[in-house]
Amino acid sequence: MDSNQLFEQIKKKESFLCVGLDTDIKKIPACLLSEENPVFSFNKAIIDATAAYTVCYKPNLAFYEVLGDTGWQAFIHTVQYIRKNYPDIFIIADAKRGDIGNTSQMYAKTFFETAHVDAVTLSPYMGHDTAEPFLAYQDKWGVLLALTSNPSASDFETERMASGECLYETVIKKSKEWGDINNIMYVVGATQAKMLENIRKIIPEHFLLVPGVGAQGGSLEEVARYGMNSKCGLLVNSSRGIIYADKSEKFAEAAGQKAFELQQAMKKLLNDFCY
Amino acid sequence: MDSNQLFEQIKKKESFLCVGLDTDIKKIPACLLSEENPVFSFNKAIIDATAAYTVCYKPNLAFYEVLGDTGWQAFIHTVQYIRKNYPDIFIIADAKRGDIGNTSQMYAKTFFETAHVDAVTLSPYMGHDTAEPFLAYQDKWGVLLALTSNPSASDFETERMASGECLYETVIKKSKEWGDINNIMYVVGATQAKMLENIRKIIPEHFLLVPGVGAQGGSLEEVARYGMNSKCGLLVNSSRGIIYADKSEKFAEAAGQKAFELQQAMKKLLNDFCY
Repeated sequence: MDSNQLFEQIKKKESFLCVGLDTDIKKIPACLLSEENPVFSFNKAIIDATAAYTVCYKPNLAFYEVLGDTGWQAFIHTVQYIRKNYPDIFIIADAKRGDIGNTSQMYAKTFFETAHVDAVTLSPYMGHDTAEPFLAYQDKWGVLLALTSNPSASDFETERMASGECLYETVIKKSKEWGDINNIMYVVGATQAKMLENIRKIIPEHFLLVPGVGAQGGSLEEVARYGMNSKCGLLVNSSRGIIYADKSEKFAEAAGQKAFELQQAMKKLLNDFCY
Repeated sequence: MDSNQLFEQIKKKESFLCVGLDTDIKKIPACLLSEENPVFSFNKAIIDATAAYTVCYKPNLAFYEVLGDTGWQAFIHTVQYIRKNYPDIFIIADAKRGDIGNTSQMYAKTFFETAHVDAVTLSPYMGHDTAEPFLAYQDKWGVLLALTSNPSASDFETERMASGECLYETVIKKSKEWGDINNIMYVVGATQAKMLENIRKIIPEHFLLVPGVGAQGGSLEEVARYGMNSKCGLLVNSSRGIIYADKSEKFAEAAGQKAFELQQAMKKLLNDFCY
């Protein structure tokens, strides 16, 4: 999927929602625990309830790895389930990988050839080597961490460089040369919405993956105001706010309702700031 | 294991060798491919042949994840095998993880409670949040990327900050306050040996994990000259140079011989620069 195709999906669904599948076995409803793979069963129900309102799913690998074999299977089955039933939905493996060339190649193979996701989040610290094997795949994406939503983003990401710019700006300026708007996205936290205005001066056209709306306190309206471009250019992620909206047997219904509410808000923001 | 106990092992074996278990199914001898889990069988043979000369094993997760379930099992079985048969050997999961707090906690749980390794390599880009859950475990370590051995380390790691220092120096100076010499190590590539002199001014006592000797061209002698302290303070990793020393049925014997040669060189360097 390239950036135009992604924008087509956004227009079709009037949504730029990404649902974060950070499925914690300790937080899923008790009624699912007797299932063969409770995490996969939970995901399936969440996906069916939210697919109409979302253009993207983003499973975070940490929540799957912690369960060993079973977790890995749940991740793979979840991706396969989306692919089969909702083939137009973009899938990001939130893995924040980054290693030297020959090792990054293995990670790229894992996510693009074994798991068949569309994109993988990458840590830029080690430089171009770490992203290159991912960007070499046709129609696949690397999603580089730029300015994240966590409090300690200020430890290094916003530290001032000798050039006068912040580290995250240097990361964006240099890494945008590694690919183009059809294979590189950037993670910019919603808690940093006002910085989006500045980021759009450097990369007016790239898609941004924006976590931190909801549980982490970011404002959807501000993200759209400062970050949206004429092809939307945003995927806004919500995880906990959707998937744990209700902890009873009605969890899927509640998740669907939350996703619908976000989609309705997004529809309005697309009209205000994009079209 | 704390830093004193690690130094005890180094003195006992007269070695500061770390064997990197970057086991690529495409590179292991054909005679193993009929085994139930070829990667685990390969690792077992390599471990038995090299354990006398090494104080540390470092499986790189990329090579296991690429195989899905089977790979994850091979990783877990490998750690269990070392734990059972060579309980004094330090184990580093080379995973280069780094995420926000609640997610990093999942990764820490995976590696310390499911896999029972001693240490995990971490990417510092997102700051303190990413390391905290790992450093909260008693007797466990975070191994932070500082100055890596790959060519594109120059993209960001050696970029100059407004303070006049390089990014990797800022990373070390700030992150050393997150823990102490008993739970933080740093990755410094052997290809950057002369920088070790400078790094030792900032962290004279911390252990450094040094990849890049051998296949990547770093010099063991230079690493010891510029990086060794009075408690050794070094774990020097070799992966491909040991585990793929021979591709016939005699692969384990050849790996043992290579590890022995490195141990002999290290014994000399310990005498020259440490004791």
